[in-house]
Amino acid sequence: MNQYKANIKITLRKGILDVQGKAVEHALHSIDFKSLTNVRIGKYVELIVEAENPQKAKEIVRSASEKLIANPIIEDFDITIYE
Amino acid sequence: MNQYKANIKITLRKGILDVQGKAVEHALHSIDFKSLTNVRIGKYVELIVEAENPQKAKEIVRSASEKLIANPIIEDFDITIYE
Repeated sequence: MNQYKANIKITLRKGILDVQGKAVEHALHSIDFKSLTNVRIGKYVELIVEAENPQKAKEIVRSASEKLIANPIIEDFDITIYE
Repeated sequence: MNQYKANIKITLRKGILDVQGKAVEHALHSIDFKSLTNVRIGKYVELIVEAENPQKAKEIVRSASEKLIANPIIEDFDITIYE
């Protein structure tokens, strides 16, 4: 068994209102960062996964993301495995 | 002025206890994802920045991250600018 580092970027699906992003954008404009727009806030998860190979590692992380880490109804996720 | 897409990965600094990560790890183990460990949960921010060039874009996003988007006392952040 090998250990791999995995990163998961979790973003709200297009069309889902990002209330937290809107609040941050508003706060940024109020302190004069008016050049920043379309702020969307997601999650960034780092973890270690033990698996036979990188393909199996990605499968495990995808399954865990679908079942628990992300909410597939409103979120997309993108997994990167590092050796 | 040009528009650039910026991504910011915000992670808790090493040594800062990640309570949310621990909770997710515990939940993963309870549904038999025992091969996943060292879960750390951060934020992933996407935004559009208007600037003269990519260097200026990164400067603006770095300044906004230090002042409002991240908490530099307990968090590290990593900015990527796309043309």
